[in-house]
Amino acid sequence: MNENKYPLISNPRDSRFLTLRSVQTPQGRSRTGLYIIEGVRHLARAVEHNSSIESVFLEPSVLSNPFGQKLARRLRKHGVTGVRLSQQLYRDLTLAAEPQGIGAVLRQQWTPLSNLRVEPNSLWLAVESIESPGNLGTIIRTAEAAGSSGIFVLSPDCDPYDPATVRATMGSLFSQTLVPCSQREFIAWAKSNGVAVVASSPAGLMDYKRMRYRFPAALVIGSEKRGLSEQLLEAADFVVRISMHGGCDSINTAVAAGVLLFEMVSQKL
Amino acid sequence: MNENKYPLISNPRDSRFLTLRSVQTPQGRSRTGLYIIEGVRHLARAVEHNSSIESVFLEPSVLSNPFGQKLARRLRKHGVTGVRLSQQLYRDLTLAAEPQGIGAVLRQQWTPLSNLRVEPNSLWLAVESIESPGNLGTIIRTAEAAGSSGIFVLSPDCDPYDPATVRATMGSLFSQTLVPCSQREFIAWAKSNGVAVVASSPAGLMDYKRMRYRFPAALVIGSEKRGLSEQLLEAADFVVRISMHGGCDSINTAVAAGVLLFEMVSQKL
Repeated sequence: MNENKYPLISNPRDSRFLTLRSVQTPQGRSRTGLYIIEGVRHLARAVEHNSSIESVFLEPSVLSNPFGQKLARRLRKHGVTGVRLSQQLYRDLTLAAEPQGIGAVLRQQWTPLSNLRVEPNSLWLAVESIESPGNLGTIIRTAEAAGSSGIFVLSPDCDPYDPATVRATMGSLFSQTLVPCSQREFIAWAKSNGVAVVASSPAGLMDYKRMRYRFPAALVIGSEKRGLSEQLLEAADFVVRISMHGGCDSINTAVAAGVLLFEMVSQKL
Repeated sequence: MNENKYPLISNPRDSRFLTLRSVQTPQGRSRTGLYIIEGVRHLARAVEHNSSIESVFLEPSVLSNPFGQKLARRLRKHGVTGVRLSQQLYRDLTLAAEPQGIGAVLRQQWTPLSNLRVEPNSLWLAVESIESPGNLGTIIRTAEAAGSSGIFVLSPDCDPYDPATVRATMGSLFSQTLVPCSQREFIAWAKSNGVAVVASSPAGLMDYKRMRYRFPAALVIGSEKRGLSEQLLEAADFVVRISMHGGCDSINTAVAAGVLLFEMVSQKL
């Protein structure tokens, strides 16, 4: 590999390493507007989607994947700066269970509400608050697969760029339009654009399968523990119910989002 | 609380604590046939389903939930043995992020293949191999909600009684019929009982939504990374595909299981 031309860092107090590590914290992400991805699949998809790559970091002894090596060479050739990290520092930074030896610092992409174009047949997702970063990532991955036009993030506590969220998206983050706004702004946007707001609740009157959805539509998803807020339930045009068997009163939020999104998208066709 | 009559353990070398902790390991579970649950919701559902409770363990200073306290009193009154654990030992044992101060040792429930009754309209799930214990738990929870008649566990590496799995089931484990058997036994059972085996693969010829399922049916789920084995794909009566958008080639296994199970169950009605 030729990436050994990147400087090697093995001192945990090296300022370049400290900068990298700060991006793994909520404060660091919010201050810098950056985030970190790890692994060949994530990096390949970031390149594919022309994501804004600030720098790469490598652990060449671990980077055995030939495609990953090629990717690293290509990025260096295109002038992307980078560093090599000692095995210890790489592990400290990424916390990956099976580190792949390549990662990158990317610029977060947020789309302002005013920039959205609402196609007649579009399907949107709004996340009110999700406690588990892994669940949020799984939901983002599901939204991409279901062909969502964008994801509204209605709470500042909900961070799509959290490392555990990024990992669970499996590379689906780069193609998604992420829209940060308040609940009130989201509701106003939906009303003024004729977007049907669909909520899900055990108390919903209509089974989600019997519902004939109209588009454009936005599905709103609430917290794992508390569900949706009263405000969003009241603002919703339709409240549907996933009927359950046994003594079961709920399913995992990401599974529920998948069941609902795939039903909705199938009705578009 | 009256549970202070249970003996208090604070020494990590106490044999009763060591026994409890051994049940948290795969070896200990397999040797004893026991497993551990933690939290009020789990315990309440175990009681509701008449699960076989061997003993309880408490951390009275944490058990503030009145319903949990009542449950503990009721179990003691019914002669269930138990111990109190010091805060440190309780945390060491349960690894719960938000410990609730009450847990129990239960006997694993496995149903032999020969004991199954196949109702004409029944829906089954077979899990070939799932790497993530959390995913497996989410799948079990989803199967209960979709009204599955039972879950076949086709790999000994796949442990529904792993602590992380148990946690993710949110109490859905107690009502489920779990059937341990080999892939070959499962296939033979399906053939001889007229159960349609449905597999899912990106290479499936039929979109899962357009498929008209016949019942009894069994959905087979493969590993997150490798999908289903050749043998199961070949043995399947139907291979369906979840059509995806964007550059997406897959969704989370538990989400896929949910999307497929809820579609199948809706066609039963």
